[in-house]
Amino acid sequence: MKIGLAQINGTVGDFPANARRIVNAYREAVDQGAEFVVTPEMALVGYPPRDLVFKSGFVDKCLQALDYLASEIGEVPLLVGYVDHNRGESPGKPFRNGVALLENGEVVARVFKTLLPTYDIFDERRYFEPAERCEPVEWRGRKLGITICEDVWTEDYLHRPLYKRDPVEELQAAGAEILINLSASPFHLGKAAVRRELLSMLAKSTGLPLVYCNSIGGNDQLVFDGNSVVMNGKGALRAQLAAFLEEVRVIDIGLESGAETEAVPEAAAPEAPEEIFGALVLGVRDYVGKCGFRTACMGLSGGIDSALTAAVAVEALGAGNVHGLTMPSSYSSKGSVDDSLALAANLGMRCDTVAIREPFEAVKAALAPLFGDLPEDVTEENMQARIRGLYLMALSNKHNHLLLTTGNKSELAVGYCTIYGDMCGGLAVISDLPKTRVFEVARWLNRDGEVIPWNTIEKPPSAELRPDQKDEDSLPPYGVLDEILELYVEKQCSPEEIIESHGFKEETVRWVQRQVDLNEWKRHQAAPGIRVTSKAFGIGRRIPIVQRFGR
Amino acid sequence: MKIGLAQINGTVGDFPANARRIVNAYREAVDQGAEFVVTPEMALVGYPPRDLVFKSGFVDKCLQALDYLASEIGEVPLLVGYVDHNRGESPGKPFRNGVALLENGEVVARVFKTLLPTYDIFDERRYFEPAERCEPVEWRGRKLGITICEDVWTEDYLHRPLYKRDPVEELQAAGAEILINLSASPFHLGKAAVRRELLSMLAKSTGLPLVYCNSIGGNDQLVFDGNSVVMNGKGALRAQLAAFLEEVRVIDIGLESGAETEAVPEAAAPEAPEEIFGALVLGVRDYVGKCGFRTACMGLSGGIDSALTAAVAVEALGAGNVHGLTMPSSYSSKGSVDDSLALAANLGMRCDTVAIREPFEAVKAALAPLFGDLPEDVTEENMQARIRGLYLMALSNKHNHLLLTTGNKSELAVGYCTIYGDMCGGLAVISDLPKTRVFEVARWLNRDGEVIPWNTIEKPPSAELRPDQKDEDSLPPYGVLDEILELYVEKQCSPEEIIESHGFKEETVRWVQRQVDLNEWKRHQAAPGIRVTSKAFGIGRRIPIVQRFGR
Repeated sequence: MKIGLAQINGTVGDFPANARRIVNAYREAVDQGAEFVVTPEMALVGYPPRDLVFKSGFVDKCLQALDYLASEIGEVPLLVGYVDHNRGESPGKPFRNGVALLENGEVVARVFKTLLPTYDIFDERRYFEPAERCEPVEWRGRKLGITICEDVWTEDYLHRPLYKRDPVEELQAAGAEILINLSASPFHLGKAAVRRELLSMLAKSTGLPLVYCNSIGGNDQLVFDGNSVVMNGKGALRAQLAAFLEEVRVIDIGLESGAETEAVPEAAAPEAPEEIFGALVLGVRDYVGKCGFRTACMGLSGGIDSALTAAVAVEALGAGNVHGLTMPSSYSSKGSVDDSLALAANLGMRCDTVAIREPFEAVKAALAPLFGDLPEDVTEENMQARIRGLYLMALSNKHNHLLLTTGNKSELAVGYCTIYGDMCGGLAVISDLPKTRVFEVARWLNRDGEVIPWNTIEKPPSAELRPDQKDEDSLPPYGVLDEILELYVEKQCSPEEIIESHGFKEETVRWVQRQVDLNEWKRHQAAPGIRVTSKAFGIGRRIPIVQRFGR
Repeated sequence: MKIGLAQINGTVGDFPANARRIVNAYREAVDQGAEFVVTPEMALVGYPPRDLVFKSGFVDKCLQALDYLASEIGEVPLLVGYVDHNRGESPGKPFRNGVALLENGEVVARVFKTLLPTYDIFDERRYFEPAERCEPVEWRGRKLGITICEDVWTEDYLHRPLYKRDPVEELQAAGAEILINLSASPFHLGKAAVRRELLSMLAKSTGLPLVYCNSIGGNDQLVFDGNSVVMNGKGALRAQLAAFLEEVRVIDIGLESGAETEAVPEAAAPEAPEEIFGALVLGVRDYVGKCGFRTACMGLSGGIDSALTAAVAVEALGAGNVHGLTMPSSYSSKGSVDDSLALAANLGMRCDTVAIREPFEAVKAALAPLFGDLPEDVTEENMQARIRGLYLMALSNKHNHLLLTTGNKSELAVGYCTIYGDMCGGLAVISDLPKTRVFEVARWLNRDGEVIPWNTIEKPPSAELRPDQKDEDSLPPYGVLDEILELYVEKQCSPEEIIESHGFKEETVRWVQRQVDLNEWKRHQAAPGIRVTSKAFGIGRRIPIVQRFGR
């Protein structure tokens, strides 16, 4: 049986465009000889639609699009993810996360999701009622075990006993001959490998071939990485689709002969910086494009964060569509302008220089009567950052650029950034990259020659908001800071655990904890960032601002 | 049986302080003759703790606080809300939303929440596993039907068939003689009346007396209004505690005699403006105080939004703790400064005047080479708003004031506000008040004499960012706009429904829809606002930024 995988990039709520995209992929698969075509979870809707599903008419419009889609489907059936009303008789949530089997112009079967992830970035119990039962779909004498994303994330090795049911077990008990999973499984670093391992174990333990079709594309903070796979019944890889790209591919899963199909060698996993860069490029391209922008602007400080952000933006949008601004103050080194211009030259993007001295002096003069004899402090540092933010937003307003924010995760974590200043922007490109990762990706980018000026990579990081300032005057060394942050933010360890089990100095750990907790208010107002770790600041981490735990 | 209700104000995650507060309330109730004391849901934790529960040690620290609390409890028992590990044998979520019965230094019973709200602002399925069964707690020969918040929101008249179980039914079938509900039920306009109606119907339909103890206090975007009640078995009100205030009160529910206890007359429901003002004052006082601030600052434009915000702030914090700034531009009318100074005089608060002309000119001059011959447009309007934001943040930074944001819900909905400009601030006081409500509350404030200058109320609203600008040049009349917004945002009607069923002009409705959808990105970065309607922008409304539904 030749299965076509349509690994497509949908836009949330754009039913007409998603339907057209699915039809095109379907035809391409049929042309390649597919006998059965599979799309990702919610392919018709875009994932995650979030509270759009509560909008009057949303689900009905989806069902209309499903009817249209069915009308385009011939003898080769299509499995498509969509959202349905809950038509059950018993009470419950109003909707279902569903899959429809379309054939000869009609919906011939519907399957609903059983396990509804409600953790991290997922809120499915907010919307959907789980399927009451899991049964194979009978199709031309075959029993197809159709599942949706989380339904297959039940392997014991996950150590995640969240659910009382096991859809795969139910399906196999009812005679399923193949497992097909439609997914919208978002990227984080290393996720593709975990997923492949899980799916391999599942195919092996059930002895069933497995077809896994994932989404690709960026939607708000999430990037879906594709990496769809087909496994044979021994858990060996039959095919793996592209990462971060749309792809349509047809795979013979050899169901007819009963013979085992040949495995393909697993491609070496990409290096972390390559995977991160790919995710960021896709995230930027889709965010900018799906929001209806063509161009972006950003501040260039001469530092590594803005340099990496620019490199990502240029790769995503094209050098001619990215406009940089370098905005020296009296405290800026000559190097900061030179390094920015060198970067822009390397990338082929435009960079203008606009100094901030005059507005800074004008603001200080205006506020002098209110500040009296009080000494200069962080207030004046923030003023400079905010004048830069004002410049960038003016450039964005005047030329209809989307402003990209350049801050990294380490500084966002401890609040070493100015709200309404360098935090301005519509998308925070590297806000889920700890500073040490930023260096790693920058060095990787330079592997075949300088993209990011070596001087930018090698000089000590500085905000240049007061004379001779260095980041490490105010912060622990980034190596230490990032390790503590990973334990405190990503792994949610207590300060006691970090001190006792990991040997960090109490004073440093307490300082980090306090800064992370106190700066929740800034992150509440931060631009959405592209998620690349398992725990980004953003929708998957919901900490109250007003709280006193551990203070 | 004399039941003490401890309607207290907890802080999320502050176990030691919450425990002390509970002990004090318990003692006060015992001194008043209570034989049994009840607190709100999660009284020991503060509600909602959100993802803090995932932090290593959070639940254990809560259990330690529970042990301490038990050690302070004597013969009169205490029912207290807390968070527990899920000690069940079967898989599921890691925690329970629980109630402990403490007596003579020990935990003598535990009850867990059965119905876990996962909609609007609630995410309980993210954290908690529901109780497997609901059974009365046997205590001194009595069968107590103990429930937690949502457990009693099952009355048919709610038209909300969300749940397959009915805890009250289960408890009554098992012989419960009284219903006790511990709640953390947040305020929105009219909620207290809905709640009282629901509880009255429940008492009447079961024939059981009902004790309902609710939280009060502000936590992030939510205000809990108290309004705890006791009903007799006929559904008549026996007592209602204060709105927006802590209170400890002891009520004899007459369980011993079996006789019906006397009802009290229901107090007239407060007028909407009074209820709103009470919620906002408590919201500001708690947000500022629980964040560790004593003072606030804000911009005064001479308009009604900043005037109402100032009146709330002065009531919440005291006139001496609120610092206003009026920041005229060349486009500002003389009235805008005069009205601001008149307001400050009425309220007894400080107001300084700092013009924005010089920095505005300096910024325009600096950017002139980038803008060339392009005409002035919204860019220059935004610049002015951003210079004001910069001033206010400088004042906040230098003097450690919390900056209050003054925008209303109508402008936030359609994006008639400047991000990083007038949207700057730590708390958006009236961001859930449509403009028409702002007028209503302002007039109510002036019922016994001018608080808000009548000129501010009567002049046409204007942003004063270009010559002779009026809001209604850019927006539909506020009466129309607010009605459309209520239908589109709060009731989630489709534009077609708004046009067809409500008779608004298609052009206007489409314009409003488009503005609301396009400005999701601004609201993503907005300061948290105090929720006063059933659907505020904020944690209870989760719309993707990147989406194209209905475009």
